[in-house]
Amino acid sequence: MYRTHTCGELRITDINTEITLTGWIQTIRKFGSITFIDLRDRYGITQLLFNEKLTQSLDKNPLGREFVLQVKGKVSERSNKNKNISTGDIEILVSEFKVLNSSAIPPFTIQDDTDGGDDLRMKYRFLDLRRNAIKKNIELRYAVSRAARNYLHQNNFIDIETPFLIKSTPEGARDFVVPSRMNAGEFYALPQSPQTFKQLLMVSGYDRYYQIVKCFRDEDLRADRQPEFTQIDCEMAFVEQEDILQMFEGMIKYIFKEVKNFEYASPLERMTWLDALRNYGNDKPDTRFEMKLANLKSPLQTSPDRGGLLSPGFKVFDEAESVLAISVSGCSDYSRKQTDELTEWVKRPQIGMKGLAFIKHNTDGTLKSSFDKFFNEEQLKQFSAFCDSKPGDLILILAGKEERTRKAISELRLYMADRLGFRKPDEFKLLWITDFPLFEYDEENNRWVARHHPFTSPKPEDIEVMINNDPAIENAEKYLEHPYAKIKANAYDMVLNGNEIGGGSIRIYQRELQEKMFAALGMSKEEAQHKFGFLLGAFEYGAPPHGGIAFGFDRLCAILGGSESIRDFIAFPKNNSGRDVMIDAPSTIDEKQLEELRIKLNLK
Amino acid sequence: MYRTHTCGELRITDINTEITLTGWIQTIRKFGSITFIDLRDRYGITQLLFNEKLTQSLDKNPLGREFVLQVKGKVSERSNKNKNISTGDIEILVSEFKVLNSSAIPPFTIQDDTDGGDDLRMKYRFLDLRRNAIKKNIELRYAVSRAARNYLHQNNFIDIETPFLIKSTPEGARDFVVPSRMNAGEFYALPQSPQTFKQLLMVSGYDRYYQIVKCFRDEDLRADRQPEFTQIDCEMAFVEQEDILQMFEGMIKYIFKEVKNFEYASPLERMTWLDALRNYGNDKPDTRFEMKLANLKSPLQTSPDRGGLLSPGFKVFDEAESVLAISVSGCSDYSRKQTDELTEWVKRPQIGMKGLAFIKHNTDGTLKSSFDKFFNEEQLKQFSAFCDSKPGDLILILAGKEERTRKAISELRLYMADRLGFRKPDEFKLLWITDFPLFEYDEENNRWVARHHPFTSPKPEDIEVMINNDPAIENAEKYLEHPYAKIKANAYDMVLNGNEIGGGSIRIYQRELQEKMFAALGMSKEEAQHKFGFLLGAFEYGAPPHGGIAFGFDRLCAILGGSESIRDFIAFPKNNSGRDVMIDAPSTIDEKQLEELRIKLNLK
Repeated sequence: MYRTHTCGELRITDINTEITLTGWIQTIRKFGSITFIDLRDRYGITQLLFNEKLTQSLDKNPLGREFVLQVKGKVSERSNKNKNISTGDIEILVSEFKVLNSSAIPPFTIQDDTDGGDDLRMKYRFLDLRRNAIKKNIELRYAVSRAARNYLHQNNFIDIETPFLIKSTPEGARDFVVPSRMNAGEFYALPQSPQTFKQLLMVSGYDRYYQIVKCFRDEDLRADRQPEFTQIDCEMAFVEQEDILQMFEGMIKYIFKEVKNFEYASPLERMTWLDALRNYGNDKPDTRFEMKLANLKSPLQTSPDRGGLLSPGFKVFDEAESVLAISVSGCSDYSRKQTDELTEWVKRPQIGMKGLAFIKHNTDGTLKSSFDKFFNEEQLKQFSAFCDSKPGDLILILAGKEERTRKAISELRLYMADRLGFRKPDEFKLLWITDFPLFEYDEENNRWVARHHPFTSPKPEDIEVMINNDPAIENAEKYLEHPYAKIKANAYDMVLNGNEIGGGSIRIYQRELQEKMFAALGMSKEEAQHKFGFLLGAFEYGAPPHGGIAFGFDRLCAILGGSESIRDFIAFPKNNSGRDVMIDAPSTIDEKQLEELRIKLNLK
Repeated sequence: MYRTHTCGELRITDINTEITLTGWIQTIRKFGSITFIDLRDRYGITQLLFNEKLTQSLDKNPLGREFVLQVKGKVSERSNKNKNISTGDIEILVSEFKVLNSSAIPPFTIQDDTDGGDDLRMKYRFLDLRRNAIKKNIELRYAVSRAARNYLHQNNFIDIETPFLIKSTPEGARDFVVPSRMNAGEFYALPQSPQTFKQLLMVSGYDRYYQIVKCFRDEDLRADRQPEFTQIDCEMAFVEQEDILQMFEGMIKYIFKEVKNFEYASPLERMTWLDALRNYGNDKPDTRFEMKLANLKSPLQTSPDRGGLLSPGFKVFDEAESVLAISVSGCSDYSRKQTDELTEWVKRPQIGMKGLAFIKHNTDGTLKSSFDKFFNEEQLKQFSAFCDSKPGDLILILAGKEERTRKAISELRLYMADRLGFRKPDEFKLLWITDFPLFEYDEENNRWVARHHPFTSPKPEDIEVMINNDPAIENAEKYLEHPYAKIKANAYDMVLNGNEIGGGSIRIYQRELQEKMFAALGMSKEEAQHKFGFLLGAFEYGAPPHGGIAFGFDRLCAILGGSESIRDFIAFPKNNSGRDVMIDAPSTIDEKQLEELRIKLNLK
């Protein structure tokens, strides 16, 4: 037995107890002839007092930061109590100690505010993980998984493991593949999700399945994406959309309660995909703050035409497909420098707008715009009224092609909210987005692609539309008039603070409809049979209605931890080139391994 | 809402309630003008009664087995109660029904005793999983994982996910590898276990780690091995072997209690590796029954030489390195045919012995051997006394080279126990095996290999022996005299009913000792640095003493389920060629995928 207690455990009630502790040296402070050492382990920090004699012994054999110590001693009351730590009332009068292991000088000190920068942190991740800032993330991650498991268990879900070595059926994202030595020339794929397996489990009658499971996507990594990531993956049989929304609304609230001790007021807001786009410019709106879009001109606009609001003489508005605005409170006094800054911001290539128009709704009620020569006061008033601006607001207006402009105003909205501190990490706003389109149009190939995935069912009322129409698009220009363009999916996303944290759908469970879907996505019968024959086959033997959802576990943990970065919530993450710089992977392998696998490198 | 209740839920107290059920048709029995249908779901079976009118409607649109139904109706008391099912007191007077999905005629009926054979079962695994016999295995698997998680949680363990895309460091088993598209010419490997990562977590201070995690080994599959398998993987810091044995003895007992409602009497038996070999012939003895080996002659024998027992004239014994025997109770009356059968059994290539000698210890106390002309009665008596045989026993004797003979007698012991019904699937016998040798001798390369793995620590008293001696083996003949041959590992296995269900060790945590270990295994400094530089590096920054264990989760579940086969405890297993015949994986991939990965096939 190495220790009797942990470094977070001893209290004033333990005084005079003889104890043994182990841990790492956080700090050493020589104080005249005695020495104070803060000893750290997973559970806390305990102050050690080395007397004169022991202190002398340190002269010959000095200790250092991150040495691993075992100390025996007696618990004693501290004269100088530390209210910031749980063991702050006591210290250990050390009688003997043993260095269990020494340490080189760490490349950065193990403290919340010193991490030595990203490269060092990743190379020495085993030291980075000692820092309290990271440790609490790893602990939170465990708490979230445990809460999810407990909730799902209470609701009769069963954790069933699905295979990792499966079949490559690339649809959308690229698969990671694994050459099979025993079946030369053939490959397994790592799952992008357990989608088809969980559907098979529904066919098998396991009507409530879950798994917290690794998934893999071989994509070019944008910031904060990982080639391997974790999902809370769930599926239910004999359910409609409403059953699923209720069940997982319950789960997220349970997690909030267990992990954050936060009672989330029910029910979650629900918003259609179209309303989200119209009011927030994207399908994962951050609703911690309002700042809704004013759709002055847009193909998405359904209310009476507001074109009259826009002066016929101002070409920027006249010639734009869309004119979209937001009213930003408290910014009417922005200086020329500040509005110029915003203009530069929207002109950056990532945003890609040509310019920014604005109206200052001054605190005295007057209106002053950047396009005064085209608008008279009355017109500005109407404009302001439509944008629902208040005195003190700054109305920001973007004009251009619908898609780009909407994306830009959505980004601008978030940017302004960040500037104004509206996006508080400790405030949480959840909502469901529903009624997604089933298909998206693929311009390049003039065909449909699945917005969610090929297993998502259309809304019940759209099934006939899908079955009875030919998916082929005769007139590419008028693809929006194709009946498929209007089909809604029985799909839903859960959004938290502007992030999609979960998404799912009611699935197709009829062979005929599934075949139609594969055909709509441009898959030949043979291809569909080769890739998904097992699923089509299973649908012939009594497949029940079913649906499910998957939560992005890494992201969920990050947001609950008040962070935007998932990397700090993964024990051993990879960098943006998909490398683990600590273990130096991927790496070359032996010629012998390649030979056994019957593959050769093909480097040009 | 598809249903108000499940098919396992309704009781006599629900009579007259209007309910809606969904499920699969198990059986249809027409009974005059009415029809009985057994409706099945995950939770049970409920009897439905279709009245005359509904029965007539079935003539036009017949139902069939495995159709998915939704029925509305009233709960009614059954006249003919079925005590075998939980809903046996009631039936549903169906008022309306809807076919949610039809079913083709299944290739085998969904019943415990009809599975259509292995090939069909695997191809139609989604139907096989509907069978109660498989369902209860999958449920048991979940119960075991949940019990393990709960126990570990209560004991302050934290579930931390380790990466799946790691570095290939083949030691022993082959790695599955994954070509990296973003790092052309380089490969990830899938983990054979999270070994090095869990050790790094100990260095990071997470002193109690666990994970229920998939691992991968690209081995030629023997029966009942899977290329992907699941471990309960655990590691602890600041522990000695005794701490780990206590902790996981607790876990296995907790699992037995939770899953089998079985109080396992404490403490687990402990046996050294040498005693296991001597008394049972292998290091995972089935101790549900005795039938210990009599070591008449063997290099492993430590007691005074028993050579005198063996007649100098019987060449089979005289020339053998080892003569080993077991006394099998109740078999003294075996006929010539039966003993011939046993002789044939030990001569099979899998066992590989030249013959079998035996002594019948008759119920009247007389002894009759198969080698009577070489032994007089007194010698047979001594022989019998040494074998501790009783009247009615049949003493079976094998002679030959030590290793093969010991393996053979061990197999024969199990075979006889099987014949005699001594290996009861509902009886459980757990034990710890300790004091393994650290190294095994690799004859082919005249060097040492790690018996467990390169991270296992020698016993504290053997550390100096290891550090101060050159691992090189000068004289291959006398390798047993090399100091390394006697080094004991700080390692332990948990054995259940003759199966190793878990194994682990106290790890090396000192850089110098780890380097010596790598050198002992024939690894150059450069190779060690290339493969395990990150671990050696981590040991320089305050690595604590630590150790752990991993349980074979699939095997553990199978044994708890009273089965020897792990396949039936895995939802989607692979066959002995590593194929998933249901989804037909592995399979060929597109030329485009190969090009992107910068690899080519190399099929000769």
